[in-house]
Amino acid sequence: MSYHPSWRGVTFHDVVPEGTLTPRAFLEDCLERIAEREPVVRAFTAMNVEDARAVADAATARRAAGRPLSAIDGMPIAIKDLIETRDMPTQMGCAAYAGNFPKRDSAMIQALREAGAVILAKAVTTELGQSEPGPTTNPWNPRHTPGGSSSGSAAAVAAGFVPVAIGTQVGGSIIRPAAYCGNWALKPSQGAIHRGERQGTSQSTAGPHANCAEDAWLVAREISRRVGGDPGHPGLQGPFTVPEPQRPIRIGVMRTEIWDRIPAAARDAFEQLVRSLSVEVLWPEEHPLLAAFEKRLSHANAVGGRITSFENRWSLCNLPRDKLAARTLARLDISMTYTAEDYHVALVERQAMRAAHAALAPVVDMLIAPSCPGPAPVWDPLAPDADDNPRPTGDAACNAGTSALGAPAVTMPLLAVGGLPMGAQVVCQPGEDARAIAYARWLYTHTPAVVV
Amino acid sequence: MSYHPSWRGVTFHDVVPEGTLTPRAFLEDCLERIAEREPVVRAFTAMNVEDARAVADAATARRAAGRPLSAIDGMPIAIKDLIETRDMPTQMGCAAYAGNFPKRDSAMIQALREAGAVILAKAVTTELGQSEPGPTTNPWNPRHTPGGSSSGSAAAVAAGFVPVAIGTQVGGSIIRPAAYCGNWALKPSQGAIHRGERQGTSQSTAGPHANCAEDAWLVAREISRRVGGDPGHPGLQGPFTVPEPQRPIRIGVMRTEIWDRIPAAARDAFEQLVRSLSVEVLWPEEHPLLAAFEKRLSHANAVGGRITSFENRWSLCNLPRDKLAARTLARLDISMTYTAEDYHVALVERQAMRAAHAALAPVVDMLIAPSCPGPAPVWDPLAPDADDNPRPTGDAACNAGTSALGAPAVTMPLLAVGGLPMGAQVVCQPGEDARAIAYARWLYTHTPAVVV
Repeated sequence: MSYHPSWRGVTFHDVVPEGTLTPRAFLEDCLERIAEREPVVRAFTAMNVEDARAVADAATARRAAGRPLSAIDGMPIAIKDLIETRDMPTQMGCAAYAGNFPKRDSAMIQALREAGAVILAKAVTTELGQSEPGPTTNPWNPRHTPGGSSSGSAAAVAAGFVPVAIGTQVGGSIIRPAAYCGNWALKPSQGAIHRGERQGTSQSTAGPHANCAEDAWLVAREISRRVGGDPGHPGLQGPFTVPEPQRPIRIGVMRTEIWDRIPAAARDAFEQLVRSLSVEVLWPEEHPLLAAFEKRLSHANAVGGRITSFENRWSLCNLPRDKLAARTLARLDISMTYTAEDYHVALVERQAMRAAHAALAPVVDMLIAPSCPGPAPVWDPLAPDADDNPRPTGDAACNAGTSALGAPAVTMPLLAVGGLPMGAQVVCQPGEDARAIAYARWLYTHTPAVVV
Repeated sequence: MSYHPSWRGVTFHDVVPEGTLTPRAFLEDCLERIAEREPVVRAFTAMNVEDARAVADAATARRAAGRPLSAIDGMPIAIKDLIETRDMPTQMGCAAYAGNFPKRDSAMIQALREAGAVILAKAVTTELGQSEPGPTTNPWNPRHTPGGSSSGSAAAVAAGFVPVAIGTQVGGSIIRPAAYCGNWALKPSQGAIHRGERQGTSQSTAGPHANCAEDAWLVAREISRRVGGDPGHPGLQGPFTVPEPQRPIRIGVMRTEIWDRIPAAARDAFEQLVRSLSVEVLWPEEHPLLAAFEKRLSHANAVGGRITSFENRWSLCNLPRDKLAARTLARLDISMTYTAEDYHVALVERQAMRAAHAALAPVVDMLIAPSCPGPAPVWDPLAPDADDNPRPTGDAACNAGTSALGAPAVTMPLLAVGGLPMGAQVVCQPGEDARAIAYARWLYTHTPAVVV
């Protein structure tokens, strides 16, 4: 299947609230697609079909009676397998957690169930959300990676298995796989979606993949209205309905630190997209604050990586080394050389990046950036040089900046390169998640897609 | 045993670094006291004597060779049973966690072991750190509570079982029991000591109980120099040696919201202590910013309680109700009525308290406050009205303010009321943990203790 940005996968809000499909009929459609394609896509680690049907039936009855619990009542959702659900194991793509089944619902899962959502499946993650890939393939071409670490979440949405899947991002794990698969996704502001038991790293977030901005927003908002954000954060704010499209006044271009290494075709496609925006655009060369921001973020990947590796050390040290992949161990061993002072220095560098971003608030309404450095790369675990590839699920360098900034990012499926999807992301100031959705909705309908 | 502030329990830095006792001999002294008094004090839920002896022997050899791993090499330490240690169960004083044994070391335990500390025992906590008491008695009078929730940690230090025990505080759970037992303790700045798996609440901290400021500081600093603070925080800063005593220029009095309900004898004792400080002191009536601060914090207990109850909801909802005490369930049920918006309002109120505190920074070097509302109350679980007592381990209202502020607090054993200990606490600005220790050391040696 060659990808074209005009493709629009299964969405929930278009058909269920209007009554075109009942939640149960919608679920059965999903199950048919899963039966057909999951053997190749391999997005899920576990499913709970029986309970899903019962919950969908209850939602069907509530909707028939005109009393849905929420806008997402009856929506089938898949959950990245780093997050705990009481009815399915949480194995985190890691042999050390094989059979781990804590029978707890993470705070966000409690919220989703309360809103009537149908928790259908756990989705493949790379090992502990790091670099070692799982078995998932890209729905647009199984020779290519779906991206990571939210591999299964991205692929499940693109394959029409579910309208929404929850992913998590510390470096580039929501936006990159979403872009590689042609999804929409929201990487929320730091703290905006309650991370439950996943509080071990300071720039991790949880957010929805979807086939439209509407489904993504509604899921995020229905979570935050019930459980708030992380401890100490009020959580994602904004309307309970989907923010209306809004035209930004001025846009800055965030090329990201990997710009010079993006394949020429992908770079040209992104530049063409930016040229066709019917809004004033500033390139870094056109404003000193944008240039300073770009310079300040030129090592975001390294700084964020150092912070995250140090933070992950304590949980990794509790796991048996023989149950960890070589790629995970390599990163752990590097992190063992960092001191608490190194960590402090990296935190200060990250703070400086955030200050450079905050300074842009009065200059541009939003930044636009490539969501990934070109289309999804080929990944063949049986290739002779596979073990030497440090990034089998692609490079997170387009996302390292927004992750370090704690800024909300919304990726839009507006590009196709060589028959595979590629995304562009709207980046706003921390807390401006609703604004990011509103801008993305406006841009999506006012910008011609680019196919090269 | 009637308490007098001249009492000074077992300390480590006075005897081991000087060579008066080897770590192994020090441990054996501790074990003798435990054998003698633990049947009544009941501070511990688990001990690992065999490994403790082996670690103490290794530390003894290192010290004999003049190569200690750290200032606390060979120090026996007890750990509140909310914190995971790989060699002892973590049962959190809760039937739902009976037999829970995750075989993991929390980040701070990894740091302590790396520094050569001897992890000797797990210490009793109230149920999940809330109100339902454990079996621990006050070492100064077993009819009285040791305070909570760090009941076992406080009692173990006062009884001479260990020179240092790690406690945790969300409302008043380090400083209050320490004061009830005649200990020193450091409740660090929010984020300063890595909380490991205990990241579920936004104003929780972990900190040491000890018999002197020196032992408390060294333990806290040896942890933070190895694992930093909470994710995103650099951790407790300051010298690796004990901060030298420092005379504050001006002190403000923080009476705390429970002032009018403190027993007259205790209030008089605290006032007498303040009058005898050989430093300029400002009462709230003498400076409008202090008066505004006192007014702003007049509901700190309620605000902090609302925040914490909402944050605890998600983990409590995953536990079977029949495994929770009635006191815990009562609090959970109240928290179920809070909305995410209520939580947001409480966070904003807490932010206002922090602003009122920050405004005091140029006005006074530190605040002095009672550490507890009088001596430890009598607690008899078999009394006819025991079930109706909402606070069997005493009232946290002297600590609710500092907890909500995220400010460091150091309690000093400077008061005795009716033969039981009572403490006074030094409170500084967030991040000023070393300064709080330095002021406390100076005040402790320049202020006559008060016995009433």
